[in-house]
Amino acid sequence: MTTPRLGSLDLSQDAVSLTAALVDVFSVSGTEAALADLVEAALRQVPHLTVDRVGDAVVARTALGRSERVVLAGHIDTVPEAGNLPSRRGEGRLHGLGSCDMKGGVAVILRLAAALSAPTRDVTYVLYDGEEVDADRNGLKRVQREHPEWLAADFAVLMEPTGATVEGGCQGTLRADVTVGGRRAHSARSWLGVNAIHAAGGVLDRLRSYDARLVTIDGLEYHEGLNAVHVAGGAAGNVIPDECTVTVNYRFAPDRSLAEAGDHVRAVFDGYDVRVVDGAPGALPGLDRPAAAAFVRAIGKDPRPKFGWTDVARFTELGVPAVNYGPGDPQLAHTREEYVPEAEVYECEERMLGWLSS
Amino acid sequence: MTTPRLGSLDLSQDAVSLTAALVDVFSVSGTEAALADLVEAALRQVPHLTVDRVGDAVVARTALGRSERVVLAGHIDTVPEAGNLPSRRGEGRLHGLGSCDMKGGVAVILRLAAALSAPTRDVTYVLYDGEEVDADRNGLKRVQREHPEWLAADFAVLMEPTGATVEGGCQGTLRADVTVGGRRAHSARSWLGVNAIHAAGGVLDRLRSYDARLVTIDGLEYHEGLNAVHVAGGAAGNVIPDECTVTVNYRFAPDRSLAEAGDHVRAVFDGYDVRVVDGAPGALPGLDRPAAAAFVRAIGKDPRPKFGWTDVARFTELGVPAVNYGPGDPQLAHTREEYVPEAEVYECEERMLGWLSS
Repeated sequence: MTTPRLGSLDLSQDAVSLTAALVDVFSVSGTEAALADLVEAALRQVPHLTVDRVGDAVVARTALGRSERVVLAGHIDTVPEAGNLPSRRGEGRLHGLGSCDMKGGVAVILRLAAALSAPTRDVTYVLYDGEEVDADRNGLKRVQREHPEWLAADFAVLMEPTGATVEGGCQGTLRADVTVGGRRAHSARSWLGVNAIHAAGGVLDRLRSYDARLVTIDGLEYHEGLNAVHVAGGAAGNVIPDECTVTVNYRFAPDRSLAEAGDHVRAVFDGYDVRVVDGAPGALPGLDRPAAAAFVRAIGKDPRPKFGWTDVARFTELGVPAVNYGPGDPQLAHTREEYVPEAEVYECEERMLGWLSS
Repeated sequence: MTTPRLGSLDLSQDAVSLTAALVDVFSVSGTEAALADLVEAALRQVPHLTVDRVGDAVVARTALGRSERVVLAGHIDTVPEAGNLPSRRGEGRLHGLGSCDMKGGVAVILRLAAALSAPTRDVTYVLYDGEEVDADRNGLKRVQREHPEWLAADFAVLMEPTGATVEGGCQGTLRADVTVGGRRAHSARSWLGVNAIHAAGGVLDRLRSYDARLVTIDGLEYHEGLNAVHVAGGAAGNVIPDECTVTVNYRFAPDRSLAEAGDHVRAVFDGYDVRVVDGAPGALPGLDRPAAAAFVRAIGKDPRPKFGWTDVARFTELGVPAVNYGPGDPQLAHTREEYVPEAEVYECEERMLGWLSS
């Protein structure tokens, strides 16, 4: 994949053309520098913004002394290429790597940043790297750690793909290893051993009969899930195995804390050795807070729950109510076939403009 | 594990001390070269033997023009280390990796090779590599393929652990991969996928409820077994897996051919994708043949069936009647706690000396 030699990003072109230009700048996680350079240079041309940068995360702000400040945020990296570059338009859709997740949203943010010289609320625009990879490479986490004051706000909108509908909160995620022991023996005399893989059938039984919770919070219904995502066991081809580990992933509604989620998984696998290996808390929708409620009214559609974990949870940690709202079908994220409907890009831009102008 | 720098093997030391010296030379399958070098060098010092080698298999022979020739054979490799090195003596036992399976038997073979300058039958001593791993790495199979004339004989004794009792025949072994499919999805929306690991619970159900056959042949009762020996599945920590493979090992009585064993495994896992990956036929006890019967009389105990697959079956393929006979409890083979009773090592050496001197 060769990156077109763009001298600069033209923020005056329409939002879909700008999305196409962004898609055509290769920015798989770890290679965002070229795109971050273009974003930074373009925002520095905008007279009403002050611009900062840390790593490949760019933060631009108005400073109008408004009584409220809001954050609009989006990540500029993508998952790996899958034969879906360069971008391609047709039948009202823009196809290509990152078109849905989430360069459509990034284009809207950049258009708003250039256009809104006098928004009714002060605005902080955050374009960051490393969202599609391990949490310790996340650019928003880097800003949070090194310059938390840049993220201070009354409300935040993450422009992840939501089908142009407000999605509140996000589910938490926890991974745990459930390990089953046994006793080794030569497989020719298997009755002298205890087969740990056979015993792991008991773990799979609990997963197969598990009844996932449906939880309603602030009128939004979350759908949990508990699944094996990995299994490994076996010592040698002629040995009754004495250990088998099933790695499970629990996706939990935001009424449960990370600690409660761990307790739940331990309870489900009571009697087995359970070790939590990884986790991130969810975020409550917070739609009862005034800033969020005002935004939902401005968008004018019924909000929905967010199942996947998103950086909304980071804002929640900072005490900033946050929602997801952006163009594109979230079920197309990370697929070869991803695209963004052109109409949703324009709609999101228009609703956001309306909200920040009224 | 560091291997003691043995300059040479002393075949004049008593058989248990020699067993300890052999245990202390690390020779997990694939790393037998150092031990093969020592064995070859020691046998080349013995004037009444001619010595050949192919790979890490060493073959030494007398050429006295006797009317009968017998093979004494043993493998020099071991299963992986399990915190059971170096060797340790106590309470009449020698503990350590390979002490039971089968460096005690190898020590007896090496002692006989050095001591018997004029046995009553010509003897071929075979010490070989790669018995504990896939059949295509088996050193005896390599000799059989490249120099079958080296194995020509009227009778063969494999000195695998049998508790110093003659064991007739051996069970066959077959490995198969049972693969279960599914459909990938993001684990945050797990209900859109089909979890292959959960579905593999059905394979484990059949294994858990499997009823193994007991089969009587030539008065010996064989005990079959069907076990999972490996399981693997999973795509990523946030993906519902679309494939899981359970590797099963079927140990079958010698009244079934390898093809019949494959049919049986396919029938057990009817409805699943079954692929046979490896197998070796069993060997009928053959105790009604004259050479085997004469040996059994010399040892002077009732013979028993052999559950584990051994290279007895290879000799059967060459038309050479063969039995297992060696020191050590076969139930301790491949366990961390394996040991060989010192008295059995001495007993086997004495009975074999008697047989080959009378």
